[in-house]
Amino acid sequence: MPLQIGVPAETVPGERRLAVVPDVVKKFLGLGAQVVMEPGAGQPAHFRDESFADVTFATGAEIYAQADVVLCVQPPKTTQIKTMKPGSVLIGLLQPWSDAKRAKLLLDKQITAFALELVPRISRAQSMDALSSQAAVAGYECALIAADHSPKFFPMLTYAAGTIRPSKVLVIGAGVAGLQAIATARRIGATVEAYDVRPETREQIESLGAKFVDTGVAAAGSGGYARELTDAERAQQAERLAKAVAQCDALITTAAIPGKKAPRIITADMLARMKPGAVVVDLAAETGGNVEGTVAGEKTWVGEVLVIGPTHIASRMPVHASEMYAKNLFNFISPFIKDGALTLDWEDEVIAGACLAHAGEIRHAGVKQVLGL
Amino acid sequence: MPLQIGVPAETVPGERRLAVVPDVVKKFLGLGAQVVMEPGAGQPAHFRDESFADVTFATGAEIYAQADVVLCVQPPKTTQIKTMKPGSVLIGLLQPWSDAKRAKLLLDKQITAFALELVPRISRAQSMDALSSQAAVAGYECALIAADHSPKFFPMLTYAAGTIRPSKVLVIGAGVAGLQAIATARRIGATVEAYDVRPETREQIESLGAKFVDTGVAAAGSGGYARELTDAERAQQAERLAKAVAQCDALITTAAIPGKKAPRIITADMLARMKPGAVVVDLAAETGGNVEGTVAGEKTWVGEVLVIGPTHIASRMPVHASEMYAKNLFNFISPFIKDGALTLDWEDEVIAGACLAHAGEIRHAGVKQVLGL
Repeated sequence: MPLQIGVPAETVPGERRLAVVPDVVKKFLGLGAQVVMEPGAGQPAHFRDESFADVTFATGAEIYAQADVVLCVQPPKTTQIKTMKPGSVLIGLLQPWSDAKRAKLLLDKQITAFALELVPRISRAQSMDALSSQAAVAGYECALIAADHSPKFFPMLTYAAGTIRPSKVLVIGAGVAGLQAIATARRIGATVEAYDVRPETREQIESLGAKFVDTGVAAAGSGGYARELTDAERAQQAERLAKAVAQCDALITTAAIPGKKAPRIITADMLARMKPGAVVVDLAAETGGNVEGTVAGEKTWVGEVLVIGPTHIASRMPVHASEMYAKNLFNFISPFIKDGALTLDWEDEVIAGACLAHAGEIRHAGVKQVLGL
Repeated sequence: MPLQIGVPAETVPGERRLAVVPDVVKKFLGLGAQVVMEPGAGQPAHFRDESFADVTFATGAEIYAQADVVLCVQPPKTTQIKTMKPGSVLIGLLQPWSDAKRAKLLLDKQITAFALELVPRISRAQSMDALSSQAAVAGYECALIAADHSPKFFPMLTYAAGTIRPSKVLVIGAGVAGLQAIATARRIGATVEAYDVRPETREQIESLGAKFVDTGVAAAGSGGYARELTDAERAQQAERLAKAVAQCDALITTAAIPGKKAPRIITADMLARMKPGAVVVDLAAETGGNVEGTVAGEKTWVGEVLVIGPTHIASRMPVHASEMYAKNLFNFISPFIKDGALTLDWEDEVIAGACLAHAGEIRHAGVKQVLGL
């Protein structure tokens, strides 16, 4: 029997991405694997069943019960995990830090679970980095949301009766999402300033044609993310930032620390000093928000400032978000599929690093500690 | 008594623009006029009362009853017109073709009414062309709406696991709105094709980096707008267009004929042949729509295609739309204000051309015929 790779439909409300796209399915088939999909699974991402050639269709229940490898975007429900075949493999954005009960269940069921969030941030693994690819989608979308909700033009515009000056956009956090938001706001025509606690981002920010806001606070952390700030640092950062915030027409915040609540960077007081009609897009809305007053999934007027807290942001662009995610996932697991069989190499730094659960054990030390398992 | 210019709050639901902005008010004051505003009138456009220096505030009822000149965006209600001072002047986007009852009332009240839609499209009057300035806003917004609702990136994107190809955007109608939509979609990074029945638009389209779709149908009309097509021309246009429509990821339609119902260009059959997930933004939604199935003010799934019919589109960007509109309006009337007095020159081609009603008469021959007055 060749390796059976199963792709059930995503069940989390609002999730429109899919773990495979037609091109990636072809590649799995080319490695001798079988692919079993749930009918209609691609529909939220605008992929029709007939666009997937040579796959077998089966119900979600059948896929969970029979597949050797289950590919997903969001973690399956516990009721679905309970029906999985012991020893089978689950790969997806499994939110490893968030749910001890689900992790425990993976152990009990002897599932080998890989969380793409845990893929080590090494050069070789960049092509598997789903956090980055999905962050690029999110950053692009945030800039569009800001432009679309701004009461002003982003670009300079010369018309018969005068000239409109370009809008000022401030981007906080210059990770993948922030850099993409900067690039997109610049493309549309805005003047962009950006800030990150990691001073080494200055060069990247400037290379995109944006101005670096220097607050005098530096907080480089590990794995490419920022470390948490001290109270004194936070106060100094807030004071310098407040000035830049007060001057911008649109503010996009993208500061995230993986597995932790998003840092609160923009206070109600800073919002109150913004221009009337200014727009704030808080990319961290789903993890608590960088902005005081953000409501996840809502557009809220805080005084005369519109604060937008988008959720399921990658699902706003499901065709390309799925394409990028599916390629990341394929690049992660395909080196270990040969002639229709899966042979995991536990000596491989990426496989070992991304493993959440295997053979009844939580493999990741950090996750183990956070979940208390 | 100096000339009293009144600016009541707009009352049409969804209208967020204002007929003046702080800079323009200063200029009116500089000409010796008084400006009387309704408190809070600027709020929907994010202008605070305190940003208007040296104006007097009065209720809307007082303004209508006392002002010598009333400036508006949308036409006032008939109940408001009824309270206006006989012989006073009303200037705005008065929708001259749409309401015989309102026109009759302007005559009965001896109002001198200027409809900015009627400003002649001559070179000297470009700085007063509110249709053009507001169309630029609408075209920009349409491209943003399309990008924001597309399930794909507009720009090409290279990431660690591959390259995303740019989206194909098709713009129909290359007037001011269409050209702005083309420019904006190009800025964001899409590949753009565009079509207009007027073959002379080819050069403008190509100068923006877009490709002209040649259907072999030419229908240049007067005043910069297209004439109506014959049935045979319409069939040929539809056949050639259908092919371009089937290939695009986003379609923006901007075809309008002033004072008439928008031409139906995209049929249900053409929509059915579009890619799953394709987005259609129908700028003509408010005047009947260029697209079969457009619902004004709604987002509608027609099969697997999302059809968006935005309304009050200039009000999505009220700060700059108001700024542009206010300057157009000022450029129209200011040449006739001197030392705090208004002296209209009926020999002036622009004044004469834009006049809807004066001294109990409909002055515009075309409007007179359409309204049957």
